[in-house]
Amino acid sequence: MKELPIHIQLHPEDNKTLYIQIYEYIRDEIRAGNLLQNEKLPSARFLAEDLQVSRTTVDMAYDQLVSEGYLEARPRRGYFVSAYEELNVIDEIPYREMRKPQDKKEEESIRYDFSPNAIDMRYFPYATWKKITKNILVDANSKMFSLGEPQGDLNLRTTICRYLHGSRGVNCEPEQIIIGAGNDYLLLLLEKILGRHVHVAMENPTYIRAYRIFRSCAYPVSLIPMDENGIMVECLRRTDARVAYVMPSHQYPTGISMPIGRRLELLKWAAEEKDRYLIEDDYDSEFRYRGKPLPSLQASDHNGKVVYIGTFSKSIAPAIRISYMVLPYPLLEKYRKECGFYSSTVSRLDQTILNEFIQDGYFERYLNKMRKQYREKHDLILNELKPFEKAFRISGSNAGQHVLLTDVKGRKEEELANMAKEAKVKVYRMQDFRIEKNSDDPAMLLLGYGALSFEEIKEGIALLKKILV
Amino acid sequence: MKELPIHIQLHPEDNKTLYIQIYEYIRDEIRAGNLLQNEKLPSARFLAEDLQVSRTTVDMAYDQLVSEGYLEARPRRGYFVSAYEELNVIDEIPYREMRKPQDKKEEESIRYDFSPNAIDMRYFPYATWKKITKNILVDANSKMFSLGEPQGDLNLRTTICRYLHGSRGVNCEPEQIIIGAGNDYLLLLLEKILGRHVHVAMENPTYIRAYRIFRSCAYPVSLIPMDENGIMVECLRRTDARVAYVMPSHQYPTGISMPIGRRLELLKWAAEEKDRYLIEDDYDSEFRYRGKPLPSLQASDHNGKVVYIGTFSKSIAPAIRISYMVLPYPLLEKYRKECGFYSSTVSRLDQTILNEFIQDGYFERYLNKMRKQYREKHDLILNELKPFEKAFRISGSNAGQHVLLTDVKGRKEEELANMAKEAKVKVYRMQDFRIEKNSDDPAMLLLGYGALSFEEIKEGIALLKKILV
Repeated sequence: MKELPIHIQLHPEDNKTLYIQIYEYIRDEIRAGNLLQNEKLPSARFLAEDLQVSRTTVDMAYDQLVSEGYLEARPRRGYFVSAYEELNVIDEIPYREMRKPQDKKEEESIRYDFSPNAIDMRYFPYATWKKITKNILVDANSKMFSLGEPQGDLNLRTTICRYLHGSRGVNCEPEQIIIGAGNDYLLLLLEKILGRHVHVAMENPTYIRAYRIFRSCAYPVSLIPMDENGIMVECLRRTDARVAYVMPSHQYPTGISMPIGRRLELLKWAAEEKDRYLIEDDYDSEFRYRGKPLPSLQASDHNGKVVYIGTFSKSIAPAIRISYMVLPYPLLEKYRKECGFYSSTVSRLDQTILNEFIQDGYFERYLNKMRKQYREKHDLILNELKPFEKAFRISGSNAGQHVLLTDVKGRKEEELANMAKEAKVKVYRMQDFRIEKNSDDPAMLLLGYGALSFEEIKEGIALLKKILV
Repeated sequence: MKELPIHIQLHPEDNKTLYIQIYEYIRDEIRAGNLLQNEKLPSARFLAEDLQVSRTTVDMAYDQLVSEGYLEARPRRGYFVSAYEELNVIDEIPYREMRKPQDKKEEESIRYDFSPNAIDMRYFPYATWKKITKNILVDANSKMFSLGEPQGDLNLRTTICRYLHGSRGVNCEPEQIIIGAGNDYLLLLLEKILGRHVHVAMENPTYIRAYRIFRSCAYPVSLIPMDENGIMVECLRRTDARVAYVMPSHQYPTGISMPIGRRLELLKWAAEEKDRYLIEDDYDSEFRYRGKPLPSLQASDHNGKVVYIGTFSKSIAPAIRISYMVLPYPLLEKYRKECGFYSSTVSRLDQTILNEFIQDGYFERYLNKMRKQYREKHDLILNELKPFEKAFRISGSNAGQHVLLTDVKGRKEEELANMAKEAKVKVYRMQDFRIEKNSDDPAMLLLGYGALSFEEIKEGIALLKKILV
């Protein structure tokens, strides 16, 4: 009987056990075509003697090879290399060169970045957050590490419910709230609830990320112009849209706050057809510097037409991947029926920490502190921008973390942004927020001040003054 | 000049500031129609005197009402109720009764739940996890609380990459890994990468949650029968599917492990067309009790055809909402182009904790401990099930956390499950994992043992023995 030569060099000092070494050697020989289909292997006893290892070691290696399909054990005949034609075939298919995408080019050297998205983390109560986390971990039991409810923990939903009612006039029950890991995720989930091919209306300019999500959901999107009161409902009526995505409290990036009349018009539009809904993105409603913040659009809705979305990423910290969505009852029913199986994307531990942070009043205190900070920066930047008033109309103030500069000298946005860049200051172009661009769009710049210090705001604006005014 | 009567009862001891009380009173009067469109309000000075409050208080209330659109300030004339026709219209639309979904009925009183999904948390190293969290919080800076990379932190991706290569033979670069809050989320993201109307093939029975997700993505799904080596590729070839979702290491719930020959057949199928892909859900590959775990399907793929998905929810704790997906380069390119803007669903803090847990060797140690635990439970349940062998064929062992009982006495699944329920033992029906059911499906029960203690397994099986054997 011809026995195949198996020339295994065993390395007893190796990390790998001997049986793995034998297994890997034979496997690789088969893969390489050195052991051919239907060839017989030496008996386990023979190989064990040959290699000076125990019989069990060889048995384990052979078992493994059989269980992975490389070998076949034929009763009373021994072990054979499997006769799968595909064992070698795979190499005939040309190996496609795996292209690696380019690394993104280096960030330009910018000294002052007036980003409208960045937020100030200098005042974040790290110590408090750590203390809460520690306390929760001390008491944490296995329950805390188990999977929570798909909609989010009831405790946190109840807290959010109260908070939203008190601060934003939102009328809802905890059962209507769905907690998720960020707005992007909630919009993906909402797609599953609303269904396919939903025609969406959006303001133009708008929050580009939301637009991209709708487009990646293959939703047709109609862009609706705005006047000084926000989205123009008569234009909305001329579309087939059945869902409108709006930011009534503080439109991003124009800063427009929608007055009650326009809101009611919008609610009326939604109430006229069973399938119409409004998505209210209340992304930074916490930061308004004069008067009480406007209540939410949802607060005026008596017909279950508003999906209210908010986030703690903006009001606490970007790393807090916790957002919430309030579903009106008709959509809640659809969610339960069709999407209730999607498991929660936020860990219970994180939900518990946030819940205590809010319940113990830290959130409110932090918001108050940040409101004061942002208001002072807001007043500072408006003051520093006074000399700009001959060259720009300044707007979008009283809320949020950025102001708008509209050129009145007929210069181009690109030109203005490039001049700023030369001065190592990054300002943002309104063009980048417009989905549909027109040749007669006014040249506008966004200057965000949220993340900059008072000194940085002064210095950055001083640099801009030299070149733009 | 006629001044409107404003009969506000102010409550200085109230939580609400005086200006809010005035604001709310007037707002509600307008909403109720008691103050009519275009009616003039008392001057701020007059109202302040009348109410015995400061002029500023009334100014603030009026400012708020103007900014919300309830009032209009007409220069040199005073404040008027706005003339929006919609202010009252909204009440004409019938208020739809908001139906609240029923509460789900109470869980039946079950003493022993042989769930195939539940995992044992008794040995989770809570103390270690807490220690790591504390240490990270001590050093945590604002960076830790900022938004991380959309794909997940590079450190964690590098660690996962090494872990997957060492334990599962996965060949990838950290740049191919996407970290997300759970498998459900990653499948939603994958939908955006693969595109719409993707025809998917699945094993039957299969992981129902994945099936539901594909259906909620409106993907047509073809169900492919399995033989003892898993999904039958010749049946797959008879469909138009371009993506197949498979669990080669340990098919859920049948426990079938796909041998190398079948794997290569499957890879060959995928390599034949540019757009074909395999989704490998390697959900509990960590738990195999004889021999070395089979390497992943991805390990044998030389053509960039396998999307590899795994999770820490199963191997660490369900509360750890961290899963990962390895994209082949063609799909990675699509992800970067079309989905790169979706922000990460996992906080940096959680990613950092997990990274240290793995890097410092705790994960490996925990896995070893759990493997031992599960193996002992596995051996125990097989032993306790010996008397069942006259009534059932017992299979699906050697891996995972459940075994399968196939009735050989011609009884019905429902009958068997109900008998168990009477004895206060919950067993699981194979029917619930079959998407397409046939009248000649054998009656099969799933008995999961992962979360039960040794005592509970013994007692539960003893109760079942009395009624099922």
